[in-house]
Amino acid sequence: MSKNTHSASQDQFANKAQAWSARFSEPVSDLVKRYTASVDFDKRMAAFDIQGSLAHADMLSAIGIISADDLAAIQKGMAQILSEIDAGQFNWSIDLEDVHLNIEKRLVELVGDAGKRLHTGRSRNDQVATDIRLWLRAEIDIAIDLLRQLRHNLAALAKTHAHTILPGFTHLQVAQPVTFGHHLLAYAEMFARDAERLHDCRKRVNRLPLGAAALAGTTYPIDRERVARTLGFDDICRNSLDAVSDRDFAIEFCAAAALIMTHISRMSEELIIWMSPRVGFIELADRFCTGSSIMPQKKNPDVPELARGKTGRVNGNLIGLLTLMKGQPLAYNKDNQEDKEGLFDSADTIRDTLTIFVDMVSGIKVKPDAMRAAALQGYATATDLADYLVKKGVPFRDAHETVAHAVRTCEEQNCDLADLSLEQLRAFNASINEDVFDVLTLEGSVAARNHVGGTAPQRVLEEAERVLKDTAAA
Amino acid sequence: MSKNTHSASQDQFANKAQAWSARFSEPVSDLVKRYTASVDFDKRMAAFDIQGSLAHADMLSAIGIISADDLAAIQKGMAQILSEIDAGQFNWSIDLEDVHLNIEKRLVELVGDAGKRLHTGRSRNDQVATDIRLWLRAEIDIAIDLLRQLRHNLAALAKTHAHTILPGFTHLQVAQPVTFGHHLLAYAEMFARDAERLHDCRKRVNRLPLGAAALAGTTYPIDRERVARTLGFDDICRNSLDAVSDRDFAIEFCAAAALIMTHISRMSEELIIWMSPRVGFIELADRFCTGSSIMPQKKNPDVPELARGKTGRVNGNLIGLLTLMKGQPLAYNKDNQEDKEGLFDSADTIRDTLTIFVDMVSGIKVKPDAMRAAALQGYATATDLADYLVKKGVPFRDAHETVAHAVRTCEEQNCDLADLSLEQLRAFNASINEDVFDVLTLEGSVAARNHVGGTAPQRVLEEAERVLKDTAAA
Amino acid sequence: MSKNTHSASQDQFANKAQAWSARFSEPVSDLVKRYTASVDFDKRMAAFDIQGSLAHADMLSAIGIISADDLAAIQKGMAQILSEIDAGQFNWSIDLEDVHLNIEKRLVELVGDAGKRLHTGRSRNDQVATDIRLWLRAEIDIAIDLLRQLRHNLAALAKTHAHTILPGFTHLQVAQPVTFGHHLLAYAEMFARDAERLHDCRKRVNRLPLGAAALAGTTYPIDRERVARTLGFDDICRNSLDAVSDRDFAIEFCAAAALIMTHISRMSEELIIWMSPRVGFIELADRFCTGSSIMPQKKNPDVPELARGKTGRVNGNLIGLLTLMKGQPLAYNKDNQEDKEGLFDSADTIRDTLTIFVDMVSGIKVKPDAMRAAALQGYATATDLADYLVKKGVPFRDAHETVAHAVRTCEEQNCDLADLSLEQLRAFNASINEDVFDVLTLEGSVAARNHVGGTAPQRVLEEAERVLKDTAAA
Amino acid sequence: MSKNTHSASQDQFANKAQAWSARFSEPVSDLVKRYTASVDFDKRMAAFDIQGSLAHADMLSAIGIISADDLAAIQKGMAQILSEIDAGQFNWSIDLEDVHLNIEKRLVELVGDAGKRLHTGRSRNDQVATDIRLWLRAEIDIAIDLLRQLRHNLAALAKTHAHTILPGFTHLQVAQPVTFGHHLLAYAEMFARDAERLHDCRKRVNRLPLGAAALAGTTYPIDRERVARTLGFDDICRNSLDAVSDRDFAIEFCAAAALIMTHISRMSEELIIWMSPRVGFIELADRFCTGSSIMPQKKNPDVPELARGKTGRVNGNLIGLLTLMKGQPLAYNKDNQEDKEGLFDSADTIRDTLTIFVDMVSGIKVKPDAMRAAALQGYATATDLADYLVKKGVPFRDAHETVAHAVRTCEEQNCDLADLSLEQLRAFNASINEDVFDVLTLEGSVAARNHVGGTAPQRVLEEAERVLKDTAAA
Repeated sequence: MSKNTHSASQDQFANKAQAWSARFSEPVSDLVKRYTASVDFDKRMAAFDIQGSLAHADMLSAIGIISADDLAAIQKGMAQILSEIDAGQFNWSIDLEDVHLNIEKRLVELVGDAGKRLHTGRSRNDQVATDIRLWLRAEIDIAIDLLRQLRHNLAALAKTHAHTILPGFTHLQVAQPVTFGHHLLAYAEMFARDAERLHDCRKRVNRLPLGAAALAGTTYPIDRERVARTLGFDDICRNSLDAVSDRDFAIEFCAAAALIMTHISRMSEELIIWMSPRVGFIELADRFCTGSSIMPQKKNPDVPELARGKTGRVNGNLIGLLTLMKGQPLAYNKDNQEDKEGLFDSADTIRDTLTIFVDMVSGIKVKPDAMRAAALQGYATATDLADYLVKKGVPFRDAHETVAHAVRTCEEQNCDLADLSLEQLRAFNASINEDVFDVLTLEGSVAARNHVGGTAPQRVLEEAERVLKDTAAA
Repeated sequence: MSKNTHSASQDQFANKAQAWSARFSEPVSDLVKRYTASVDFDKRMAAFDIQGSLAHADMLSAIGIISADDLAAIQKGMAQILSEIDAGQFNWSIDLEDVHLNIEKRLVELVGDAGKRLHTGRSRNDQVATDIRLWLRAEIDIAIDLLRQLRHNLAALAKTHAHTILPGFTHLQVAQPVTFGHHLLAYAEMFARDAERLHDCRKRVNRLPLGAAALAGTTYPIDRERVARTLGFDDICRNSLDAVSDRDFAIEFCAAAALIMTHISRMSEELIIWMSPRVGFIELADRFCTGSSIMPQKKNPDVPELARGKTGRVNGNLIGLLTLMKGQPLAYNKDNQEDKEGLFDSADTIRDTLTIFVDMVSGIKVKPDAMRAAALQGYATATDLADYLVKKGVPFRDAHETVAHAVRTCEEQNCDLADLSLEQLRAFNASINEDVFDVLTLEGSVAARNHVGGTAPQRVLEEAERVLKDTAAA
Repeated sequence: MSKNTHSASQDQFANKAQAWSARFSEPVSDLVKRYTASVDFDKRMAAFDIQGSLAHADMLSAIGIISADDLAAIQKGMAQILSEIDAGQFNWSIDLEDVHLNIEKRLVELVGDAGKRLHTGRSRNDQVATDIRLWLRAEIDIAIDLLRQLRHNLAALAKTHAHTILPGFTHLQVAQPVTFGHHLLAYAEMFARDAERLHDCRKRVNRLPLGAAALAGTTYPIDRERVARTLGFDDICRNSLDAVSDRDFAIEFCAAAALIMTHISRMSEELIIWMSPRVGFIELADRFCTGSSIMPQKKNPDVPELARGKTGRVNGNLIGLLTLMKGQPLAYNKDNQEDKEGLFDSADTIRDTLTIFVDMVSGIKVKPDAMRAAALQGYATATDLADYLVKKGVPFRDAHETVAHAVRTCEEQNCDLADLSLEQLRAFNASINEDVFDVLTLEGSVAARNHVGGTAPQRVLEEAERVLKDTAAA
Repeated sequence: MSKNTHSASQDQFANKAQAWSARFSEPVSDLVKRYTASVDFDKRMAAFDIQGSLAHADMLSAIGIISADDLAAIQKGMAQILSEIDAGQFNWSIDLEDVHLNIEKRLVELVGDAGKRLHTGRSRNDQVATDIRLWLRAEIDIAIDLLRQLRHNLAALAKTHAHTILPGFTHLQVAQPVTFGHHLLAYAEMFARDAERLHDCRKRVNRLPLGAAALAGTTYPIDRERVARTLGFDDICRNSLDAVSDRDFAIEFCAAAALIMTHISRMSEELIIWMSPRVGFIELADRFCTGSSIMPQKKNPDVPELARGKTGRVNGNLIGLLTLMKGQPLAYNKDNQEDKEGLFDSADTIRDTLTIFVDMVSGIKVKPDAMRAAALQGYATATDLADYLVKKGVPFRDAHETVAHAVRTCEEQNCDLADLSLEQLRAFNASINEDVFDVLTLEGSVAARNHVGGTAPQRVLEEAERVLKDTAAA
């Protein structure tokens, strides 16, 4: 490497600000520079950019495009760059537009021509597509593990409360008694599906776009399978035009994230209602709550509220990316630079939120008395009475009608069904006997729903055990 | 079954308009009735509602809740109802709110008490959840097959045009020459991922919610596995609260549909641009175009334009469903009735659009001369020159700079790179020899990109064959 | 008009299915026909299409393009067509694609060449833009009046409950006591802004696009101001390319509709929570509720739930239209046909929902005892105590801290602030005197917030009167 | 102010991290702290927070709640804080959660008890609502002025190109010739509506929420009109519950921003297509373009592409905020903290984008020859021929049919309509004379569309002048 060549390459980056500038006659204005630059947000992919570059360099060396010395120089340079970044000493420059050029320029500074050979047989188009997939794959693995932990903690709490009864609501009206464990396991099911979806999404993320170069592939005899193996990709993208323009994986992830936050928002809504003083079913640990600058008595469930609110940004990110890709001709267009911030934000939002919820679930303080009191209000066992009548031979529709009359009577007398005398009950239907009172208790009601998916404590314990086993740390 | 009971049950539906009415004292206004009724749009699930009811009745009979006679009566009644619906003679009534009550009431009319026993051990909450999954599963299977046909036709056209060269664009600027077959196969890749996603979504659709009853399960000793087997479900929903309130599967489908339409919109954008007279790369068969009421010369690519526009409604349906579920407490709330129209619309949109595109792709008339002329405009082989220099030992970044100077010279002289003399080229870099002209031709350029995913005709043929084989009709 | 010409024109519509078909050689397939046709949904604009055509014909006659006889024939024909449509006897044909060609063809059948002259100097592009604005203007006027009625009924109920106290919540935690009238008037404010927004939107809807013809204007000496006057437009669109491609007004309306439904969804959420048995602040009239097919005791607030759910579709329609217009080149593209269904749906949704809410608000049954009981739970007057201390000279931040200690003590002793003895209170701060108990009552607390916007009953009465006056029927 | 009190207040902020902490027993974890803190993004409102606080303090002093000395101390402290912030020396702390507490704490450090008295009679709920309105009002004013400049530059270019002819497209097919000036003015119309919408939105932004305190108003005899006057608000919010929970103004602004970006995306799409080499209608100045890291010949229209892509984030922000507010009960919930980032991002996006477009429009280099060549391809004057026939007495529908036949003949003979001989033309309709060739020229065609809104050069000049006048700098 001659001193002269090195200087020239320095000039290319340093004086002309952009790698393509030989064809341009006007300076780029500062605002345009800022508007089109991405380094402020894409630098977070730096480690993955380096990882991808090293795999590329390894392959270039293996097929004889660069020498072993060049490879060693690149590896040494990249190691230093990574440590500079980790130490916060790397000098990010908006003049160099993005994470790729910033790192490449530094590499050329450090190792000269070897650094300039690194970009052989690739383009920023396939480079960024590779970086983002490596980054997203890591985020997905984190999210899947957080979902596992969250399900684990839900199941642990469910096991403790397999016999705790609260009113099951439909339409926020008391419907039938359920166990609190059963209610918690409903969320464990949702988060299980979320993890499934992330697994499915990961399959499509984990394909190598590198080798597509700008859009058409490259004239070098590259070995894409080698690069895929080095980077742990399951497969390679089979069409170069598609490889550089595909952002499906990002959109699919954002859709999966939107469903995660939808579940979080539902759980949050319930936590907030349950903490409201008229309901009072639970309390959250203080560290997930905040107070008021004006009302000294307040203890607000800030974390679930904020989490519920964050559903908005995650839905917004999804729409942002879908809008972005709508009607874009092949192959790469600058529009695609806009894929990152929304994706990053969705990944950060679910990571932070799930991390906090894992902890928060364990800190839920249950108030069984308030739950029980609520279950006794609202004729929660009316369906049990109807079922009782059906078992005595009354067609379901007629039984339903009969019980509706009984409830109306209770409302007029301001009492519960269980408070009616046998005589009163028999006035509605003569087939009612003493054994009716077994089905009108909360315990009788939940215990009777004893099939897979039902709320019977026995079933809840089984399900909780199953989930605990399924989510045990590796 | 006494005559008397039968009459009473008729009254329940006929005079009181709603099954729960014994508890209500006011008539429902017509607008409220229309506002809350769903029969206008949910009646399309009628066949699936009947299928689900028959499986439920079969199970009730198997476990001894209803008699064999009742089962036979229900089967006979349902067969008649299905034929009435198919013949357009079924009398749908908005007074009966939804598809379920309409069918059940007719069943009771036809077979009396046996019909009234059908609803034993279930609720409309798990019934509608079952119907919609059965319906959606069928739609997914149709969409997957349409995607297969579309990929097949794309691959067939790609095979024919494995050697046809057009400019590959990035930023709608000429980038590098590619083959038209390669370009078409990019879409085949997208639609392959779409089919994958639908397969993944189908796994989560194909689980049985029936047995959840209203929200907590039922007191009858139901056999959910039997119902699942009868209906072809892979699995059963393991939590009753989740089973009746889960709409993930609908949202996941709508997200997959949004990606399908995103791909359709990208392809449409290209078809529209390619048909624009200044470009003129293709023509669409007349039956996919329309004219103008005022401009007699117009032949407009209406189908791709409309398809591009329909991306909007499908994105909108996705947001509609996500918004719907945001912050909903468990379990069923009436909000959920709003899940259907958007879902139906997305399914219809992709079905119609894919059906038309399957046919339209086969009718694309390619104009290779216009494509070639465009590829010769825009220095499409500049990258090849840079690669050539690198192979002569010039570091990539320096080669890039050199070619940028050469392009600038061409622009000033209004000629192509291939039009420069060897002497002129050598002025930019002395290592350039006569063999440079091999890489400056379009054919040389595409042939050189000869690796998996590259645009070389040989690779395109291989890929087209692979896709054709993969998409052959069963 | 020769018999021959008439027959020819019949053939144009009848045999060739589309007006432009002379240039086409292939029949349009049935699916494509259905896919591209809009008559199924745009026929609802028929009356406005006729209104626009009559104004256009009047102008053509005034400037001498068509004869007075032609005008009379057109008027007579259109009158008949309108009556046929009103009577449900008009034969809508999908072969004629849209409402415009259906009506025009029928007109030619009825009045011959005069009908064929109607389309002079216009195109379907400016025709449909005119129709949709006329239609939307009418919908806006209806919505504005419904908002007026809704505010009126809210204010009437607020007046009745100017002194009824319930807990004001923040974070669904008890914050400070407020009056129910004050709470209701918050919604009256929201709906007032909604009406303002519709008024503003109407200005931009109410401009005439007719005269833009296909995109460039027309070669006839048309009098656009005359047409605008006839149709009641405030202004004319000043650029033909913009006139035919602008859908801002539809998007702006959909955004306003989304805000209306957002307010409706917030009010619905509160109604649902207030009807939940643990809260029990209100009851809704039976006709806005439904029951359960399985649980005989249920009375579900279906209308507010469904209304809350409908927020989804209205948000979705907004995104649908924004997506539709994203990146569309000028001028008209077929994509734009997709503007209608979403717009229609948003307009229908707010019309139905507001109509029902106008009625439902009047039927809210308030339960003051439950409200009062809830206000006494949760230290609602803690802020009043802090303010009391400040007025005694304690800096606000220190007062806040002191009251937080007092609340903590109450929690430990399970009592309210008002239950503490003067002695106990003085232990927290020596400046507390006997008069502290005045500010610790609910009535004292609300009465003290006596400024514009505050919850004091006096202020609520004034505001309610103001709104009642402002919303009195014309 | 005693030393002791001062110290205590320091402790309140410094040691306990949050102002309400006396009621809490657990430390807030770092992640929860970060998750719930907003100071990272809301500190940009610091100047407005101070402005609002000064107006509040001024009023408190005027009504005798705080002394003149206190007011002076607050003013002095705030001046210092503002200069610390401007100088980048202010120490923002995440422990103090948001911009409000950070500033208040510093104020207390600087001026002691006077600082602690500032929060009298207000809450962070109404404080943040005030700050955000002040901030947004300023952003709206900036955006309105940028829209003015953009319209000005569009009109200036339109004036220059009032006679430059290009093909007007519908469906991206050549429709009729238009002037480039006319085309540019279509965008001037769109941006004029955008400015109107911002003006309308500003009315609703510019109302004072301060005085609502936490939710119910305050017990102090505040003078809200005085504060409104001081801060330049047009009006005051008339309901305290609404005042603290209303985010309509933010959503309305985001909707207006989405329309602005929709217009920008349409213009960008056209600029990108116009710069594509097969079209070549214009060139953008180099400073709005970038090159390629691999293809040395590329000059990519990065700015319009990126702007088109940014439509996505702005649509996403709108959906984010709508989702946020869906179903939120009154009054303030922590969800609302999520209103800011999306709003900030939309405001920043339109500000940057409009600023760049103002400059970019002036740098558009027009290529009239390419435009003219394109207009001559595609039978752009076919409508003129049809109009010609109508003026000769042929009913429009028949004329349309005749011209369709003529175009078909031209296509078969590969020529333009103007290339047909008189004899050939007369074969289609005998009423055609020599004067037909006047209407078949591009100049004849555009000149004939001479009415308000038409493309005739004379009209374009008039409109351009009108816009230039309307947008002259104040």
